[in-house]
Amino acid sequence: MSEPLGVAVLGAGHMGADHVRRLARTAGARVAAVADPDTGRAEQAAAGLDGVRVHAEALAALHQPDVRAVLVASPDATHEEALLAAVARGLPVLCEKPLAPDPGAALRVVEAEARAGRALIQVGFMRRYDTAYRRLKALLDADELGRSLMLHCRHRNVSSPPHFTSSMLISSSVSHEIDAARWLLGQEITAVTVARPRPSSGAPAGLLDPQLVLFETDGGVLVDVEVFVNCGFGYEVTCEAVCERGTARVGDEPAMVVRSKGGARREIAQDYLVRFADAYDREVRAWVRAARAGRTAGPGAWDGYAAAAVAEAGVRALDSGERVTVELAERP
Amino acid sequence: MSEPLGVAVLGAGHMGADHVRRLARTAGARVAAVADPDTGRAEQAAAGLDGVRVHAEALAALHQPDVRAVLVASPDATHEEALLAAVARGLPVLCEKPLAPDPGAALRVVEAEARAGRALIQVGFMRRYDTAYRRLKALLDADELGRSLMLHCRHRNVSSPPHFTSSMLISSSVSHEIDAARWLLGQEITAVTVARPRPSSGAPAGLLDPQLVLFETDGGVLVDVEVFVNCGFGYEVTCEAVCERGTARVGDEPAMVVRSKGGARREIAQDYLVRFADAYDREVRAWVRAARAGRTAGPGAWDGYAAAAVAEAGVRALDSGERVTVELAERP
Amino acid sequence: MSEPLGVAVLGAGHMGADHVRRLARTAGARVAAVADPDTGRAEQAAAGLDGVRVHAEALAALHQPDVRAVLVASPDATHEEALLAAVARGLPVLCEKPLAPDPGAALRVVEAEARAGRALIQVGFMRRYDTAYRRLKALLDADELGRSLMLHCRHRNVSSPPHFTSSMLISSSVSHEIDAARWLLGQEITAVTVARPRPSSGAPAGLLDPQLVLFETDGGVLVDVEVFVNCGFGYEVTCEAVCERGTARVGDEPAMVVRSKGGARREIAQDYLVRFADAYDREVRAWVRAARAGRTAGPGAWDGYAAAAVAEAGVRALDSGERVTVELAERP
Amino acid sequence: MSEPLGVAVLGAGHMGADHVRRLARTAGARVAAVADPDTGRAEQAAAGLDGVRVHAEALAALHQPDVRAVLVASPDATHEEALLAAVARGLPVLCEKPLAPDPGAALRVVEAEARAGRALIQVGFMRRYDTAYRRLKALLDADELGRSLMLHCRHRNVSSPPHFTSSMLISSSVSHEIDAARWLLGQEITAVTVARPRPSSGAPAGLLDPQLVLFETDGGVLVDVEVFVNCGFGYEVTCEAVCERGTARVGDEPAMVVRSKGGARREIAQDYLVRFADAYDREVRAWVRAARAGRTAGPGAWDGYAAAAVAEAGVRALDSGERVTVELAERP
Repeated sequence: MSEPLGVAVLGAGHMGADHVRRLARTAGARVAAVADPDTGRAEQAAAGLDGVRVHAEALAALHQPDVRAVLVASPDATHEEALLAAVARGLPVLCEKPLAPDPGAALRVVEAEARAGRALIQVGFMRRYDTAYRRLKALLDADELGRSLMLHCRHRNVSSPPHFTSSMLISSSVSHEIDAARWLLGQEITAVTVARPRPSSGAPAGLLDPQLVLFETDGGVLVDVEVFVNCGFGYEVTCEAVCERGTARVGDEPAMVVRSKGGARREIAQDYLVRFADAYDREVRAWVRAARAGRTAGPGAWDGYAAAAVAEAGVRALDSGERVTVELAERP
Repeated sequence: MSEPLGVAVLGAGHMGADHVRRLARTAGARVAAVADPDTGRAEQAAAGLDGVRVHAEALAALHQPDVRAVLVASPDATHEEALLAAVARGLPVLCEKPLAPDPGAALRVVEAEARAGRALIQVGFMRRYDTAYRRLKALLDADELGRSLMLHCRHRNVSSPPHFTSSMLISSSVSHEIDAARWLLGQEITAVTVARPRPSSGAPAGLLDPQLVLFETDGGVLVDVEVFVNCGFGYEVTCEAVCERGTARVGDEPAMVVRSKGGARREIAQDYLVRFADAYDREVRAWVRAARAGRTAGPGAWDGYAAAAVAEAGVRALDSGERVTVELAERP
Repeated sequence: MSEPLGVAVLGAGHMGADHVRRLARTAGARVAAVADPDTGRAEQAAAGLDGVRVHAEALAALHQPDVRAVLVASPDATHEEALLAAVARGLPVLCEKPLAPDPGAALRVVEAEARAGRALIQVGFMRRYDTAYRRLKALLDADELGRSLMLHCRHRNVSSPPHFTSSMLISSSVSHEIDAARWLLGQEITAVTVARPRPSSGAPAGLLDPQLVLFETDGGVLVDVEVFVNCGFGYEVTCEAVCERGTARVGDEPAMVVRSKGGARREIAQDYLVRFADAYDREVRAWVRAARAGRTAGPGAWDGYAAAAVAEAGVRALDSGERVTVELAERP
Repeated sequence: MSEPLGVAVLGAGHMGADHVRRLARTAGARVAAVADPDTGRAEQAAAGLDGVRVHAEALAALHQPDVRAVLVASPDATHEEALLAAVARGLPVLCEKPLAPDPGAALRVVEAEARAGRALIQVGFMRRYDTAYRRLKALLDADELGRSLMLHCRHRNVSSPPHFTSSMLISSSVSHEIDAARWLLGQEITAVTVARPRPSSGAPAGLLDPQLVLFETDGGVLVDVEVFVNCGFGYEVTCEAVCERGTARVGDEPAMVVRSKGGARREIAQDYLVRFADAYDREVRAWVRAARAGRTAGPGAWDGYAAAAVAEAGVRALDSGERVTVELAERP
């Protein structure tokens, strides 16, 4: 191994700062630049690390000579421009989901990468790096339980961040299940329906929370997702695959069981950065390793596009109360 | 306590014979008559018990002088006639579900009981007597977790009996969830939708198994039921109530956990008579006690009618692929 | 079946009153007499039942002409006299544990029954009727996991009753594990050692609580029992058998799991009458059935004697801090 | 951050090779040397890494100029010499347990470090870095459940390596529990007793497997450890702390639950490098970070000495069948 990969991190918010720390712990990587319009925040994220340059402009970071790869953790609306610039410069990118805020933008990114003639983009669907999900994937691939028939998914957050909208339950939260289902099954999603109960009084007024999102796949699998972003008790992500000869369930965490006052209690993580800490680590390590070797690993631009297209159909299904079919573009 | 309740058991099949044994173990009850067109089967069910008369005709059993209550476990198609006869004679009845095979017949029974001016009929929805379900009901009634938003139900059988049809997944299997949901929530079901994956190759050809049945209630609760009657691995009935401030799940059985060859394994019951043995005992004991006191207990004729009406809508939803609204008659 | 078995219940305390209710629910039994020096308490236990005579003297109840079997739930010190009287009259007895408060008295009972030439006595070790324990017994008998090597047992109570002494942790609480180990393994216990930590400050002053009791068997199995009668959180009885090719654990109850405020919580029963309600029911039903047929079922007088002898050695081990060997009398 | 820490790894066996890979993944570290008498094995461990020098002699590796820290994973008998040499050169060391094969050697290492006037040695008790154990430690430290009374520990391996002796169940396997107990409780162990059943026929002839090891601490806590190194089914390490107001149990892993053929099955890891993979990663990262800063982290030489002294008493307890008190030297 020669010298470490110089990485520019775009965005120094919660997620970006976390990735800066993660890259700094990873052999083979060096944080070369952090870009954020709030340069104070960028400097804080880089504090304690040597040789990091701070930028207000993402594009300036991309053009820094020792930057050889890019991690995009800036607001969704800025992704397309950053991705196109990175592709233009031939830089490998790890882009936090979503690839882009709408299928049109996502498709432009897919096409730009196709024109570049080389896979450069990985999307941050970190569940593919979670040990439990990987075991489930291996089990399904090994066909031990027969063909998959249904997936029952739960995606629960303690509470939603400010300005979270009813559409974002699908486009932001459920996008993880969209990718996980496509990956676990190796199938495309063809239709979406959204059912929902009367909203919880624990959710902000007007937020349609929880929802039950139903996906159909081209392999005849039915996927239901309970998404409940103000469940109040924990960050809980589980998935049960129902197959022809059995079921397999993942997502119930390792845990300390405390017996006290009448019961036995297992803790639940409160936060996705806690629950998926190891998955994020594996994701970034795998990406750095691949980027240094001039390759990509994990979910690519097409996966980002497909997730955006399905999520967009899901939002229309929520709005209309109807079943909406998903139309994917031709894959370049 | 004076002399025990003389009970006529109609039907000496699997369920009827089991009830004969159960009544014989219960203080306060005496099996006075067993009726079955196959009188050999009836005699076998009564073997070892004193003073039981065997009949080929259900009505003959009802007219036996020492019969003071009736347990109906004969084929569905015979329920209406038996129930009307029992009501006409003023006999308390415990009727295995369904009350009647269609909502029209069920409504005629409801109306006959209403004309009799006295509650005489209990329907055999035994889950209301299961310890776990009762704890869930108590928790929801106590409002500890806030209003209910969703119920996630699983109803899995090892394999379906011969001649089981796609409609019967709803009308026979899911009828238990229909009653359980109405009872747990104290709400009526107003609409049904049925989604389903490509059927399992482990199911008989042509059987649409599994299915995902969605109910909406007049209280705004969404209920989803996975029904899978050829799951291959066990008889498993679970229910998770998702409420505003938490969830509660029942149905994972008491169990021996065996660690061997790479894993820790918990057994699952293979049969509903095993899984719900204690619930059936409680149900029959409660019914005997009530009948001796001239009262009824548990789910009544209206509950039987409502279940039939919802199930009939569910079958139409399965056939049409559409959401079907449930229209209940005026309650007499 | 002809007329029900007339049973005299001796003792109308917590346990005796519970058994009166249980017998009244059981076909084949009739509570003919209740005896308690506190006749008001006896009358209260019998309230609502027909044809029960109340006695201040146990022996008077035994001599009542329609009494054909005896259930002993009176204080330990009264057991020997009651048992000898019942044996003298040839009455089947179900005796709450212990058979007698010391091995000498227990042996006199064993010998009296031997002289009577007929098994009449069953001891109330109800775990033998618990579904989970029976499954464990069946698994060990089937030799699926190879020879048993160790048993790890936990016996926890929320709090100890008044006047509970350090010796009673062994003679009263652990006596259940003594019988369960002998029964599960089909082996006799040959030595006892008692280790213990500094007592819990949650226990009454002076009470050596908890303790860790170690038994050795003639089959070379090592049994450890944590007994903690002021654990504060529940009544919890578990047993893990460690065998040559695996382990099997029972005692974690059926349960509702409630997710709320940061965790997933499973309730634990607070009381043995709740935890073992079904086992007590099965025990009494089996005893009534056997007594009517002139037989006994379940653990007999010898088992009661062996438990007393082992417990007595255990108390000496606690007092001395040494390993104490168990000397059993010749079995008559 | 300036240049990475050059580390010499002594020993290129299973554990050493694993640490080479781990160091190579860790930012801040660089494998500068690998020493093993079998240089072919050393070269294989270093394959694919740049700038690693291979040595047959451990001392040669220590004297390599760019080596600034040492990881000792060579056979136990070589630890003392390596540690004394490293201390003499002022190099930080991470030493796989045991610190030394006997308390005398361990004490010489402790004294040498004391003379050096600076903490240089960390012992590889990786459980202190396991997430579950850390949560348990935090819970006990927070005193939520009151004072600790007992620890129930299980330490099970699928099968023992060749040449494993009865003493090694204590000195090698249980040494982890010795350190974990001391660390969790913040107490010293004062006495040891070893009880054991007839050995498993699944263990090699002559191996006393399993054993039940009892420790007493100076805080009055009783610790029991089932050690079973040929349990056949998995690598399983659990610990339940019994406190005055509740218990807390860790070690039941995250897991996929598979329902099939009559049961629900949770996988168990087969190997400690799998079970504790994340703990080893955290341990090495923490050590590298500390070493670069001229500090140590985690368990030190004294902990290694105490574990050796307790283990030596445990072996004497096994041999004698008696309770053996632990005599610790004066801490320098």
